[in-house]
This record gives sequence, structure tokens and C-alpha cells, in this order.
Amino acid sequence: MLYLIGLGLGDATDITVKGLQAVRSCSRVYLEAYTSVLTVGKEALEEYYGKQLILADRDLVEQGADEILENADVTDVAFLVVGDPFGATTHSDLVLRAVNAGIPYKVIHNASVMNAVGCCGLQLYNFGETVSVVFWTETWRPESFYDKICKNRKAGLHTLCLLVCHLVKVLIIDFRGKKIYEPPRFMTVSQAADQLIQIIHRRREEGEELGMTEDTVCVGVARLGSDDQMIRVGTLHQLVSCNLGAPLHSLVITGRLHPLEVDMLRLNAEPNALENLHMIDSSVYIS
Amino acid sequence: MLYLIGLGLGDATDITVKGLQAVRSCSRVYLEAYTSVLTVGKEALEEYYGKQLILADRDLVEQGADEILENADVTDVAFLVVGDPFGATTHSDLVLRAVNAGIPYKVIHNASVMNAVGCCGLQLYNFGETVSVVFWTETWRPESFYDKICKNRKAGLHTLCLLVCHLVKVLIIDFRGKKIYEPPRFMTVSQAADQLIQIIHRRREEGEELGMTEDTVCVGVARLGSDDQMIRVGTLHQLVSCNLGAPLHSLVITGRLHPLEVDMLRLNAEPNALENLHMIDSSVYIS
Repeated sequence: MLYLIGLGLGDATDITVKGLQAVRSCSRVYLEAYTSVLTVGKEALEEYYGKQLILADRDLVEQGADEILENADVTDVAFLVVGDPFGATTHSDLVLRAVNAGIPYKVIHNASVMNAVGCCGLQLYNFGETVSVVFWTETWRPESFYDKICKNRKAGLHTLCLLVCHLVKVLIIDFRGKKIYEPPRFMTVSQAADQLIQIIHRRREEGEELGMTEDTVCVGVARLGSDDQMIRVGTLHQLVSCNLGAPLHSLVITGRLHPLEVDMLRLNAEPNALENLHMIDSSVYIS
Repeated sequence: MLYLIGLGLGDATDITVKGLQAVRSCSRVYLEAYTSVLTVGKEALEEYYGKQLILADRDLVEQGADEILENADVTDVAFLVVGDPFGATTHSDLVLRAVNAGIPYKVIHNASVMNAVGCCGLQLYNFGETVSVVFWTETWRPESFYDKICKNRKAGLHTLCLLVCHLVKVLIIDFRGKKIYEPPRFMTVSQAADQLIQIIHRRREEGEELGMTEDTVCVGVARLGSDDQMIRVGTLHQLVSCNLGAPLHSLVITGRLHPLEVDMLRLNAEPNALENLHMIDSSVYIS
């Protein structure tokens, strides 16, 4: 059996009891180690689970899947994923390989940023399409995430922006074909807000009608689900100068707001962050 | 401290280790018992947690919040929610009352249908706005969820349809002001598919351009995250005659499909369910 087990979002104790029982019963346990991160490292997990963990980097998962699945028809193998195995990153490829090899699989779910972000007070069913924000380079400055945010806002919906996080160095091939290893790094709420403001400035100069502005109410979240999580509600402009500390960070751009959502946002709001909200109809707010 | 603790989706062992530790340390533990359901009942949870649970019905949560929060400034109180505390149903009101009373609160997240539905193979970041489907009566046949589904599909996005579930009898006041108690019941995938088909028929008769048809590929899921979960992929027409057993059920209407999503859907597909898919551009499929 191949177990795909979500570790949740905080520390070693955020695994479910069912997940922990499965980990302890497996003969090999892999830890997916390139898309996300807990607030504790591999060693802390090994000590808590009482199991040695094998780090699975992108190469191992994408090219070495046979190694992960070896003998999984006769023994139990666990593949641990921060968050949920089918959260922001899915592991469909590994599942399909298992099925093709006649290996049964079982998913043990857990919280992911995709649902835990609801704790900021915005209703999950009012979110539109999720977007990803990557680091710009001198020659590559994609803006498609801004257009998706505006489309969501036009429909009254909030947008969860997943901010890029490389836990290991990443090979990038630049436009001249030169190989560059980008160091491990993660995008902060401040950096994401700054990129958005640059897009808004550029579009404003071009005379485009803007789907969001520097005054749009946004929510920065860091280390969601951990004991030291931070939630900061401010205008996009205010969030440029916020410092939310260690990874992971995510950013939410609000759409239409129900009064109960506004009350929840107020719990973590910067001074005057909500003063630009205006009522549009039957006590629905927008910024 | 007020703990809001997600129980996840399956049985007693789907709570996180952190959640279980908190439950066991609390002097009073409430179980929210009207919006969702595990595959085991209150007694099984009490035995596993080693704690008496106080059932919190809608009246207690909405009118009796003071009782739940009593002494929570000096002792620990837990409020248990199937799924995640901020999943499909949020408990913002209870949080706001706690904060106003000077009681600190802490959320212990878990999987909810909003993220666990990813296990059917559809990418979570390709979902649009979530919709709710309620039982029609003779005089009340809302169709707004159909319009939201079509809006999502037009943007290429999938739609999660949450199907109504009353675990207790519900008071409904009909259009003549008469009070009716509706018995506990839950909507099946088959019933939801049937309502959608009735809408499609009516709109077709009116000559409306259709955003989805009987041939649109849909996914029915039942008891997501439990040992006997069922996932059934079929055309909307096929799902009308499926029987997925006990609650809870949810229905997903697909939008544009990536080839990897199609491969995953195939694992649980009815015969010929995917034969109406056609490629629209760069190997993206739609039905």
C-alpha cells in the first residue's frame, strides 16, 4: 500500500492520529521536501514519529518514482506531504504510477493553506480561482496573476495568492540558454504586494481601468496553522512595508465583503486599513 | 482559552494529535452537530477521546454562545467541528463573541471537503466559486447555483457543489407563513444531478444558450476521507442513476481539464463517461 499522508501546517503534532499510525506501520517513509515547509525540520519529525525519513526532492519524485514504489505491493510505504497531499501541489503523477503498477493507495487528508486560510475571517466559498506569484527577473515579469485577481474581484470573489517558495536551489535556464542555480528563497507578503503595486502603476500609466488599487484591502498570512502564525490586514500599500518573518507567506486580495467578514478582518487590521471600504448594496462592502 | 478544533472527515482518528491533546486538556468539550457528520457518532468519539461531549445544536451555538464561553477566560473549552472550523461553515460569530469577552482563542485546523475534494484528481487551484444546493419545494426552486456553475465553466473552472444536509429537523416557514418542520435528511449526488438536469431542460426549452449539458463530466463523492469513501465520475446524466450510499455527498462540475486531470478522473469513471471530452487548445479538454 502507498499511503499519501498530509502533515498539516504547523509542527510535528499537526499530523492526524490516523496518519501517525500509518507512518509508524510503514517500512519506508518519504518526506516530500521541495514545495512546502513546516515550522520544524526533518529531525524533529523523525524524533516525534519514531521513524527515519527519506527526503524526496523533486528529482526523486519525478524521475525516481520507481524507487519510492518499490515493493509497495507487498509492504507499506508512506509519502508525507506538508499540508494535504492534494492541496496546492498535487501528487497525481505518483498516484497514477502506483495504480499502473497494481499498487493500492490511500490518502490521509489534512489541512492545507487552501482551506486553513479561512481563519482570517473570509468565507472560503467566496474565493475564486487561486493564483501563484513568482519572482520576477529582469527579463520575465509575468502579470497574468493580476488579471485573474481582477476577474475574481469583478465577480465579487476573494483571491488566494500562493507565493513561490524554493526550499532547495532551483535550476533556471535564462533567455540566452545559460544555466543559473537560484538559491533557496521564499517570497514575502511585502514582495508580492510590491510586485502588484508595480503592475497597478504600469497599467494606470497606460490608462487602463483598474480592477484593484493600492487601497484594496488585502490579508497577509505567515506560518498559517503554527503557534506563531501572523495575520495582517491592510491596504495593499500598507502590506508593502509589513514584516511577517519566516516562511511560508500567502496573500489574499479581498472581493466583496460581508459585514461578518469585515468584523473578522478588524481583529487583525492595521490602523485605518478598513476606512476605504464602501457599501455597494444591502450591506456588502468593497474596497 | 477557546479551542476551535477540526475533526477532519472520516472517523475518530482523523483528529490531529495536537487537536486530541487539546480536547483531553479541556474542562468542557462541545461537538457542533448540525452542519456535518463523521462516519461515527458522538459515543464513538467520546470513547476515543476519553471525554464527555456536549452536543451543540444550532440554537446553542447561535443563541447560547454565552454558555459555551462561560469561564473560558480561566479554563479551557473546546468546540469541535467536523472538517475544519473555517471550512464550508465558518464559526466567525463564536470567535467574535470570544474576542469581545476578552477570551483568547486558538484554531486547530484539519481537512475539509473544500480541500480534500482534490483527491478526485481535479486541481484545487482550478476551482471557482463554491455553490450550495438545497432541496426544492413545490414553491421554491432556486436556480442561482446553476448560473454560478456556468460562470465558473466559462472561465474554465471546476465547481464544488455542497449538498444540503440537515442532521436535525429544521424549521421552515412556507410562503403562507405556516411553520413546517423538515425531517433530518441529506441530498444525494443523484438528487443534485436530477435538479441540475431539470434546470437544463427548462432553459433549453426557453432557447437559452447552455453553459453545461447532460453530457458534462461531473464527479460525485461520498463520505470523503473515510475508509469507505466513493468517487464516481460520469456525465451529469449518468450520475442521476448512481447510488453512493450514506452521507455526506458532494458533486463537482468540471470546467477545462488538463490531461493529467483526465487521467486521474479515468480511475473512477463510468463506462464512456469521458468519451464526450474534446480538446480545445494545447491539449486542454472540455465537455
